Amino acid sequence: MLNNSLISKSLIKHIKKLRLKKYRIFHKEFVIEGHKIILEALSSDFEINQLIVSQQFYNTIENKIKDKIDVYVIEDKLLNSISIQKTNNSGIAIIKQKTQRELNLKKNQYYLVLENISDPGNLGTIIRIADWFGIKAIICSQSTVDHYNSKVIQSSMGSFLRIPIYYKNLLEFIENTEIPIFCATLKDQDIHNYKFPEGGILIIGNESKGISKEILNSIEDKISIPRYGGTESLNAAMATAIICDKWRNYTNRR
Amino acid sequence: MLNNSLISKSLIKHIKKLRLKKYRIFHKEFVIEGHKIILEALSSDFEINQLIVSQQFYNTIENKIKDKIDVYVIEDKLLNSISIQKTNNSGIAIIKQKTQRELNLKKNQYYLVLENISDPGNLGTIIRIADWFGIKAIICSQSTVDHYNSKVIQSSMGSFLRIPIYYKNLLEFIENTEIPIFCATLKDQDIHNYKFPEGGILIIGNESKGISKEILNSIEDKISIPRYGGTESLNAAMATAIICDKWRNYTNRR
Repeated sequence: MLNNSLISKSLIKHIKKLRLKKYRIFHKEFVIEGHKIILEALSSDFEINQLIVSQQFYNTIENKIKDKIDVYVIEDKLLNSISIQKTNNSGIAIIKQKTQRELNLKKNQYYLVLENISDPGNLGTIIRIADWFGIKAIICSQSTVDHYNSKVIQSSMGSFLRIPIYYKNLLEFIENTEIPIFCATLKDQDIHNYKFPEGGILIIGNESKGISKEILNSIEDKISIPRYGGTESLNAAMATAIICDKWRNYTNRR
Repeated sequence: MLNNSLISKSLIKHIKKLRLKKYRIFHKEFVIEGHKIILEALSSDFEINQLIVSQQFYNTIENKIKDKIDVYVIEDKLLNSISIQKTNNSGIAIIKQKTQRELNLKKNQYYLVLENISDPGNLGTIIRIADWFGIKAIICSQSTVDHYNSKVIQSSMGSFLRIPIYYKNLLEFIENTEIPIFCATLKDQDIHNYKFPEGGILIIGNESKGISKEILNSIEDKISIPRYGGTESLNAAMATAIICDKWRNYTNRR
């Protein structure tokens, strides 16, 4: 519903507060920015609570806005002052967090487990990779960066709308899982010799420390990407992309 | 040589100026920051002109500093005010740009051509990937972001010290090259069916526009990474990582 009143100071304050994880948890909301992601959100099953947009952007999305969304059309200058983007000529949306359905692992589906990914940009990129390769869900350790963090959302480029993400105690989760599971390390079996399972779980570890000893000890299959040059490590997102491509192609051709 | 005088205002100004491409070109210098990259630079064949470091970092690198380097030990607070990093407790170095030897392509070596990569973080990540996969040189279009940009250097994590990078007119370069050449697109032959050449050149295009028509028209072999999910595109760096892994493994096993 188009709101004719001006945007209130308290709503602006609310948006700014939602940049902090504790307020996101408390209000069960998060913020997205920019025309591409807002457009994708409008046609997703996420619920938009408020939409704060420029006149120009409003004109292009008017027919896509459901009645119960609270819409504010504001001046570009004000929009930019609320936004965390360098320039934002389109809008900002406050979205209701989704209560994920209980995770029900299926044997022939593909899953990703992330232990302690700390860089928001990396998590966002990994979500985008997971989306490209048809990963069904991502299960993160509780120490992994919050996926509602705005940098995660920006770098996932809309893919966070399609991939359910869970935060769990990983040791417990691994102990109780019955589908195949394998992990990426820096010095184990060459991925090109590995007989990938037809579906299962790939574990990716922290950007600098890799996978913790506790998890490594509980996993039998450990695979590595062969190195031909000088750098010591591959970025966690790169490793995810290479392994997912290999995995999907391997099982696709069997 | 340890400089006992205080760091001059003009040197601080010089460092700040080197953040701009035109001054880097004029002075034939660039700036690196942080202990890991400075350590790598000290044992590389790049020439360091000035080194501005904290006392603590100086103590750990003292025996690695060649005589002709001009060294300033300064207070952490001042160091942080000059640095563009969030926190920099180690140092800043001004490095002399290297005049690259003439590019001499060899048939059984691996090369990367980048057309119009515009994000510094992407270029840095691609340089790091190239280093991992033993790529011999990177040839960039003149429109590609400057590889001496500080964000490129930070995200390459030292790999820029090992990979020679050239800027060329790509159409001319491609026309005159006699080694195999292929490019990555979004809708051509599956990379998993492609008979990779034993060495050659992989072309990666701009993050959102891909490879220009002019270049595409001049290349016969076009390959794509199969998609299994929802997102429209893979990041240029991801595509580079996946294809390089596949390419090196393919030719390695022949």
